[in-house]
Amino acid sequence: MEHSSWRRLERRFIRLRHDKYFEALIILVIVLSALLVGVKTYELPNHVEQALSIADIGISVFFLCELAIRFLGDENRLRFFHNGWNVFDTLIVVVSLIPIQDGDLVLIGRLIRVFRVLRMVSIVPELRMLINSLLKALPQLGYVALMMFIIFYIYAGFGATFFAKVNPDLWGNIAISMLTLFRVMTFEDWTDVMYETMVVYPWSWAYYLSFIFLSAFAFLNMIIGIVVGTINDEQQAARDVDTSSLKPVDAQWLARELHDIKQQLKRLDSRD
Amino acid sequence: MEHSSWRRLERRFIRLRHDKYFEALIILVIVLSALLVGVKTYELPNHVEQALSIADIGISVFFLCELAIRFLGDENRLRFFHNGWNVFDTLIVVVSLIPIQDGDLVLIGRLIRVFRVLRMVSIVPELRMLINSLLKALPQLGYVALMMFIIFYIYAGFGATFFAKVNPDLWGNIAISMLTLFRVMTFEDWTDVMYETMVVYPWSWAYYLSFIFLSAFAFLNMIIGIVVGTINDEQQAARDVDTSSLKPVDAQWLARELHDIKQQLKRLDSRD
Amino acid sequence: MEHSSWRRLERRFIRLRHDKYFEALIILVIVLSALLVGVKTYELPNHVEQALSIADIGISVFFLCELAIRFLGDENRLRFFHNGWNVFDTLIVVVSLIPIQDGDLVLIGRLIRVFRVLRMVSIVPELRMLINSLLKALPQLGYVALMMFIIFYIYAGFGATFFAKVNPDLWGNIAISMLTLFRVMTFEDWTDVMYETMVVYPWSWAYYLSFIFLSAFAFLNMIIGIVVGTINDEQQAARDVDTSSLKPVDAQWLARELHDIKQQLKRLDSRD
Amino acid sequence: MEHSSWRRLERRFIRLRHDKYFEALIILVIVLSALLVGVKTYELPNHVEQALSIADIGISVFFLCELAIRFLGDENRLRFFHNGWNVFDTLIVVVSLIPIQDGDLVLIGRLIRVFRVLRMVSIVPELRMLINSLLKALPQLGYVALMMFIIFYIYAGFGATFFAKVNPDLWGNIAISMLTLFRVMTFEDWTDVMYETMVVYPWSWAYYLSFIFLSAFAFLNMIIGIVVGTINDEQQAARDVDTSSLKPVDAQWLARELHDIKQQLKRLDSRD
Repeated sequence: MEHSSWRRLERRFIRLRHDKYFEALIILVIVLSALLVGVKTYELPNHVEQALSIADIGISVFFLCELAIRFLGDENRLRFFHNGWNVFDTLIVVVSLIPIQDGDLVLIGRLIRVFRVLRMVSIVPELRMLINSLLKALPQLGYVALMMFIIFYIYAGFGATFFAKVNPDLWGNIAISMLTLFRVMTFEDWTDVMYETMVVYPWSWAYYLSFIFLSAFAFLNMIIGIVVGTINDEQQAARDVDTSSLKPVDAQWLARELHDIKQQLKRLDSRD
Repeated sequence: MEHSSWRRLERRFIRLRHDKYFEALIILVIVLSALLVGVKTYELPNHVEQALSIADIGISVFFLCELAIRFLGDENRLRFFHNGWNVFDTLIVVVSLIPIQDGDLVLIGRLIRVFRVLRMVSIVPELRMLINSLLKALPQLGYVALMMFIIFYIYAGFGATFFAKVNPDLWGNIAISMLTLFRVMTFEDWTDVMYETMVVYPWSWAYYLSFIFLSAFAFLNMIIGIVVGTINDEQQAARDVDTSSLKPVDAQWLARELHDIKQQLKRLDSRD
Repeated sequence: MEHSSWRRLERRFIRLRHDKYFEALIILVIVLSALLVGVKTYELPNHVEQALSIADIGISVFFLCELAIRFLGDENRLRFFHNGWNVFDTLIVVVSLIPIQDGDLVLIGRLIRVFRVLRMVSIVPELRMLINSLLKALPQLGYVALMMFIIFYIYAGFGATFFAKVNPDLWGNIAISMLTLFRVMTFEDWTDVMYETMVVYPWSWAYYLSFIFLSAFAFLNMIIGIVVGTINDEQQAARDVDTSSLKPVDAQWLARELHDIKQQLKRLDSRD
Repeated sequence: MEHSSWRRLERRFIRLRHDKYFEALIILVIVLSALLVGVKTYELPNHVEQALSIADIGISVFFLCELAIRFLGDENRLRFFHNGWNVFDTLIVVVSLIPIQDGDLVLIGRLIRVFRVLRMVSIVPELRMLINSLLKALPQLGYVALMMFIIFYIYAGFGATFFAKVNPDLWGNIAISMLTLFRVMTFEDWTDVMYETMVVYPWSWAYYLSFIFLSAFAFLNMIIGIVVGTINDEQQAARDVDTSSLKPVDAQWLARELHDIKQQLKRLDSRD
């Protein structure tokens, strides 16, 4: 008897899980939680802060319920945590439920609340697809990224070796040098950095210019690689669709067929 | 009798509306109104200012007449305001006719006069098409824009939470933080922002670098999406034109046809 | 007798004009004149300056001779000045021959010497082709450039109207405002400009952000337009080459032909 | 006897050379040498410095052994130094073995150690291919690069002529002017440079704007050239693959063939 009522509840969960209004409600609550994050960064009167804390607990509880429904409404409960997005959702919900009073940990609690906005990505399928396609494009950049890292490392090695005494804040060690080189790559006040070292090493402009050209060239190469790759993929897909509906005629086969017909006609002609 | 003279006038308006010289005159007056806007931003002697005011009234009256002619010369007068550009034109003309003396409102009056330059877009068809194509490209960017907003919001949430005490002018609340992040994305003195927070949080460079990579990557993705989309559209259009004039041969159909001919020839051959 | 020796000289000029070594010599002298321009920007001892002046006169005379040879060696002397590059060369050579002693004019003399470097473009055919292809791409950008100018003009109108009192150096009149907006478009210290006006108009960030988005969008549109246009042109050219050697088969025509053959076969079949 | 044992050793070297684990070991040691370069840029206690020196010698010896194995294991020892990467490797290894004590030369020794990281490129084939493809793309940029150099040179000539007195640090001679123009091209504080010269020459904004437009246009042209070139290459390759497996039907040939058949049928028809 109890078992059957449980089954009924389960079926209801499954239905709820795929319900459009339920999904809209979740998105609404995520937007509310995002607004809460935003509002909390303003200076607020005490009673509003208290109201927000209550709203925050409400959102946490709602997320917990929603997660429970999605878990119980899953067709294959054992595989629920095989999906990375579900693991992410569970982690966010569980951590945000831990009551934190301590000063330092309060910041971590707020951090988790900020991450709750990312749940938008795990709920809206289009955004999930966007992230997946971004992740798919990453490995194809692997070797170019490695190349760029090597360029950065070598230039940072040079920089830390020669310029450390000129300005230890910018070239003190290889890590700081790499940060400075990233700054140079974004053209952010890079001439200030250059003019400073040119006082001691007048030829150091060659170091900066060669770095800018090399990194810009590698970067350009990366972009062109992605653009060309994407265009080729799309065209390949378009070509596959075309040819599946209509097969082109092979000239050699047609020539053979026509030759056969002509031979038969000749035989017919001569027989008469 | 009166009705017929009205008809004659109406026909003249329709003819005028499509007249090339009339259009050129309108463009000339719009250019004049644009020059007026420009000239007024300079310090001018009093009598020139007065002359400009009269010229301004003249332009307003000309625009009113032109609008009346276009309205009366429209083939379907009831649908005149269904066109967004007509509504825009009417609004600009009507508001610029309201006489404003009050100090604060004078600025709004000048604002409207600036907007009159936009009438160039509503008159020149090529510019109108350009705007329309821009508007058409927008929805296709929808989800990427949403994704970028989420990235901005989350990073701004972090920023406002941790860096508000370091520099409230840049990280005071979530709105200011988003503006600061936009500044970081444009590489505008972003290292100043970073070095400031690195004094308190030495690891905060990871925050800026990850944000720059994420936003650059999402931005790149957006551009590539538009480029690939546009190229595909053009090629699809080119392919459609090609195939409409010339239908390709299906190999299977040709094989069937040739088989039929051969069978008939065989029958003919055997009958003899 | 004199006429025939003139003819012989003329033929020699024509041969010289198309000579490879003569062309190499011209390029060498242009490179020398470019080096002269560069060297003169350094502080030099007096006697070197004098030597350079003599070298400069030598180059001017050489250019005059070269121009004379090219003019006399032209197949169609009357059309010599129909070619824009020839006019440009003549102008440069003639002006650089005028002796200038006056203080102010000395600068103009040096200017002309700088322009002599541009003769490289008029001599090397590949560079001339590059310039021509750049000029060809310009008109296709016409309307987008007009659109961008309208955007600039309207925003500059706003800026000069509202921000002139905040900082007259940046927003004093519509021309200065357009320069400031160009600066904002290149992201060059644009936040300094923004923070300044935000003190008086706290909502002015919307002005800057909308301008950046609009101009970036229009700019992007321009680039995509050129890229797509170039790719389409190339593919069209490739397709034209393909189809000129091989004409595709029209399915409808083939069907009609095969139908004719079948009908004839049927008639043949029934007649027997 | 000795000869045969040498042969056996040689065969072992050849096998070792193509061994996967040996290659992985080399990469590991290169990574270690890279880490060494990084660690040395930090302030270290004396005994760690000594340990690092020993590790450095160890790496040098390992590289020497590895190079010897690769040389002895080469199928064609005489051609070993025809490969640029082998020459590069040998140079790096030999120079890093020279013991340097002198103050000034110590820096050069460290420099060589930084270059050792580049051996990663000579070992990993994918990176070597990347570099090769970058080098292949270079000549195609030749004339655009020359064009840009001419633009730079002419503008620098102007700048050094007119602005040298305004700010000799930025416009002192043609070399410094070119560096300043490169700075302007990267939009790095270019308005500061402009405002300074606008005090003396109010129209000098035209100089900067025309330079920015020209260089941006040439740069854009370069990028578009590469993108279009790469896409065309890929499509050409794809087309070649397509057509090798299936030959298209020529309409004219098919028409001739069908005409022949019809003629024969007509003759047959009339003969009966």
